[in-house]
Formats: sequence, C-alpha cells, structure tokens
Amino acid sequence: MQICRSVEEVRRLRPAMKAMGFVPTMGFLHEGHLSLVRQAAAENDTVAVSIFVNPLQFDSAADLDHYPRAVERDLALLEKEGVDLVFLPTAELLYPPGFATRVEVGGVADRLEGPARPGHFSGVATVVAKLFNILQPQQAYFGRKDAQQCAVISRMVHDLNLPVEVVTAPTFRESDGLAASSRNARLTPAQRRQAPALYQALEAARQAFSEGERNRARLEALMTRTLAEQLGENAPDAEGRRAWETDYATIVDPDTFVPSETLGEEALALLAVRLGEVRLIDNMLLNSASISAGRDSSSPDY
Amino acid sequence: MQICRSVEEVRRLRPAMKAMGFVPTMGFLHEGHLSLVRQAAAENDTVAVSIFVNPLQFDSAADLDHYPRAVERDLALLEKEGVDLVFLPTAELLYPPGFATRVEVGGVADRLEGPARPGHFSGVATVVAKLFNILQPQQAYFGRKDAQQCAVISRMVHDLNLPVEVVTAPTFRESDGLAASSRNARLTPAQRRQAPALYQALEAARQAFSEGERNRARLEALMTRTLAEQLGENAPDAEGRRAWETDYATIVDPDTFVPSETLGEEALALLAVRLGEVRLIDNMLLNSASISAGRDSSSPDY
Repeated sequence: MQICRSVEEVRRLRPAMKAMGFVPTMGFLHEGHLSLVRQAAAENDTVAVSIFVNPLQFDSAADLDHYPRAVERDLALLEKEGVDLVFLPTAELLYPPGFATRVEVGGVADRLEGPARPGHFSGVATVVAKLFNILQPQQAYFGRKDAQQCAVISRMVHDLNLPVEVVTAPTFRESDGLAASSRNARLTPAQRRQAPALYQALEAARQAFSEGERNRARLEALMTRTLAEQLGENAPDAEGRRAWETDYATIVDPDTFVPSETLGEEALALLAVRLGEVRLIDNMLLNSASISAGRDSSSPDY
Repeated sequence: MQICRSVEEVRRLRPAMKAMGFVPTMGFLHEGHLSLVRQAAAENDTVAVSIFVNPLQFDSAADLDHYPRAVERDLALLEKEGVDLVFLPTAELLYPPGFATRVEVGGVADRLEGPARPGHFSGVATVVAKLFNILQPQQAYFGRKDAQQCAVISRMVHDLNLPVEVVTAPTFRESDGLAASSRNARLTPAQRRQAPALYQALEAARQAFSEGERNRARLEALMTRTLAEQLGENAPDAEGRRAWETDYATIVDPDTFVPSETLGEEALALLAVRLGEVRLIDNMLLNSASISAGRDSSSPDY
C-alpha cells in the first residue's frame, strides 16, 4: 500500500494504476467506509482512499477541532482491505498561501444542510474537485447517509464535465439502525442509546408511506412525534440548552431536495438532529415498493 | 480535422490522441489565435481548438449579441493549420437546464476587470474548467493580451490541481501596435485609426520605466496623458456620451495585480479604454531590461 503525502507522488504513481476506484474520507473509518472500499475494489483494477479532515467544509471551528482522528488505525484497516494507494495530505498542502478558488454549487446545495452549515457544500465541492483532479479515478464512491452531499457532488461532476463516475452506496447501519458515522464516536453512552431514534422516525415515515400516506405535513409530523417519543424528556438545562433539538425533519423530492406539496411514488425523508454537542443526519428513500424490498432499497441515487 | 459537437464525441476520440495542446477561443480567429495554434502544434503531438462564445462570461447582453462570429471561416483557417480536433459546443450543451455550478476565483480576479465586468471571471473560470475536463489537454495556450485572465486561469489550475500546464504567449500586435482582438472588427475605420493609442500609452510607460521612473502616479499620469493626446477631442455628444473613456490606466504587481506604491524591477501596465461601443484592453510588462529586449520581452507569466 502506497501512502502519498504529496500531489507529485500521486502523479508519479498514477499512470501505472489503470482503472481506479476512489473513496474520499475524513478518516476515523467505520464499516460504512470499509463497505465503500470493498465495492470500489470489486468494480475497479485499483483502489485509492484519501484521508483528509477538510477544514473548508466545517462551518464551526469547534466541530473541526472535535472531529475524531485515528490515522494509524485507519491505515491498518486500509492495508488489511488491500487498498493500493492512500492519499494523506495536510491542509497546508491542499490550501497553500494564496489559495483563492471555490467550486460553488447552487440549486440542490441551497437547501437543508446548505443554510444550516454556511460554506459547507462549497468546501465539500472544492475539496472533492481537487481530489478528483489529483487522483483521476474512473469511479468515486460516496455513502447515501449524506444524501444531499451525494446530490451536490453529482451535480458538480455533471456541470463541470469531470471525467469520473459518481457511485453512491447504501447507508451502513448498526444493528439498532443507527447510521454509521465518524461523529457517533462523540456521543455519550446515554446519547448513543438514544441515537437510533433517527432511524425509528425514518422507519415510521417509510411504513406510513408504504401504506399509502402521501400527505407531506402528516409524514413530517409523524417523524417529529417519533423523535420526541424516542428521545424523551427535553427540559432546558441551567444555560437554557436542551438535550436534543430537531434541525429539520422533512420530506423532499429525491432529485431536487425541494419539499413537494403532493408526493408521488418516491420521496426522500431527511433528518438532522442535535444530540448534546453532536449533530447527526440520516435519510431514507420512501417508495411504494419499500415494504417488500426492506430498508436500503434505495434508488441508484441514494 | 475532427469537428466535435458533443462531449461524447470528444471522449470517444481523445484516448487515441496522445499529448494534446489546447487553444480555447471564442472564434472570429485572428493572427493572435493562429500563433497560439502554431505554438501548441510545435509543442504537442496533437492540437485541439474550441470555438465557443461563452454567454457566462459576458456581463452585458449587448456585448454578447454583438460579439463577432464567423465559424465557417474559422474552421477553414484551423483546417489549414493542421488542427486535429475542433470542439464546437452550443450553449445548451455546456449549460443544460439545471446547470448550477460556478468556479469562483478570488484574489487576482477581484481587481480591475473583476469589478468592471461582474461575473466575467467566474464565467471564464467555469467554462475553462469544463473545457479542460472535456478535452483533457496536457498544455493549454492563452494570449497575454488578456493578462489578468491568464493570471485567473493559472490561479484556478493551481488551486484545483487541474492536470494541465497553462502556457501564455506574447500578445500579437498589428504593424501599428494595436493588440489583435476579435473585438477590433467592431471598430469604425476612424476608431481603428485611433486604437493604437493604447499601445502608444503603454510604450510611453515602458520607455519611462526603462529610463528609471519608479513613481506609479507619474507613470499612470503619463499613460492617461498619452491616451488623451492620441485619442484627441472628446466633447460629449447630444446624449452626453463621450467618444472615448479610460476605464483604467494603471501599474500593478505582475503577480497579484495589486497597485504597489513602490515599484521594483518589474511591473505590469494595464489599460482598459472604451472607443465608441467597443471596450479594448491591453497591457505591457515593464522591466529594467526592456530597452534591449524590445516589446513583448515579457516574463513567462504574461
């Protein structure tokens, strides 16, 4: 396994590597990442992974500081998976003095996580464009847990004619339904026990949708109610801060991320919930076939 | 010569084409473009040229409407030069419904032409990124007449790690010194006779600089005075509009495009002048060696 810490090293090794599948990560790898790595390995000659906690996509300095890191453990995991190349840049390498360019995506990036985290999607699009240009993969893999990120990256790739295919893979869930996320490591044991509430709220919406419910307001109220039931008591503490908070619980069009008044045969349920200091997101595709196909019977896009 | 009107055609032909030199143009080709094509041919296995009047980089609908076009003549010229591939997209192909991504360059793009033409450099950077991703050239050629554009594109390529080398080539000048530009075709015969005033103003600055003048204000005043002398009478017409107008006549740092109070051994003189309906720009590198080296003895960057 080659570990590259400069662009020049990648450029030197790349020509001999043939068709490459690429998994960009922020490290602190979990089973969700590893399932992407395995899919990339099955579908390509070679596999590259990047580990980079991208400061450009954090809207909060505290969130960046607290983002969990474990590079040595990550490298051991990737070595075991037979990964060919790991790109391990520093922030100084990717954003040297004088750096002044941003890739800005409109439309789908302007909703939900967009206003909730100013600059986030611009930071994601910019670093992903850079990583694609450095690694030059044929296919790049992203988890559908970050559904809106998948849509923003697909939009960018299409709009800028980047010569790479974006592949999205089902959300990896723990046995209790919690979507795998590096941020889960920051939950207290009590919060960790509460966290499957997001999955349960999405499941409630999926169930109602599959039974024919097409009223968006009622589906959203069902998710909000399920969250409240599962997360429990929420009295403000001495500083007036509540134990948890729903940022959004909404149903949107899976292509545009616009909430549509009338729902058709397919819709996307999305949640963002703060548990203590940790903000979790999750989503589930609702479609009329979702009873038989079970969870993660998502369309190829999410 | 292959004429490609779709991205798929380029993607199909590209793998067989080896090292490619690429000259992006807005058509209405002149000797300046053709000198770039010849340099690209001398330095690469194959040469590609794009012809696309990019609506995204025009801040004025009238300027876009009046931009001169002559595709059949352009294709005949390129055929004669032995060009291998011409990419001839439509606006609908490059900006289909739903298109929502922009490449935004800060710093050098925020000055002079930036505020003078809102959205211009964002439009340039976006289309050039797209063309690079479609053509995947090893080298791309730009004329130094558009010095700030060269700097913006170099910044973008560096910041986004695009795998292409930006080559800038000397400004091609007519025998009277006027910088070749497609927009020159829109000048009336009288304006065409006046237009070398820009070159003369730059030459006056170059001469003074080479004789030791390092006071920015005095060099700028010399350019402004030379323009007034050469362009002549400028009384407002019935609508209060003057025959010509200096948008800027300035001396900046060649790397940052910031006007520096104290000038060193190298500086860039830049002009933007409106003659009737036509806005012309030109520039010249001033350096202490410029007496002996003559005009266009520019650094590799301009």
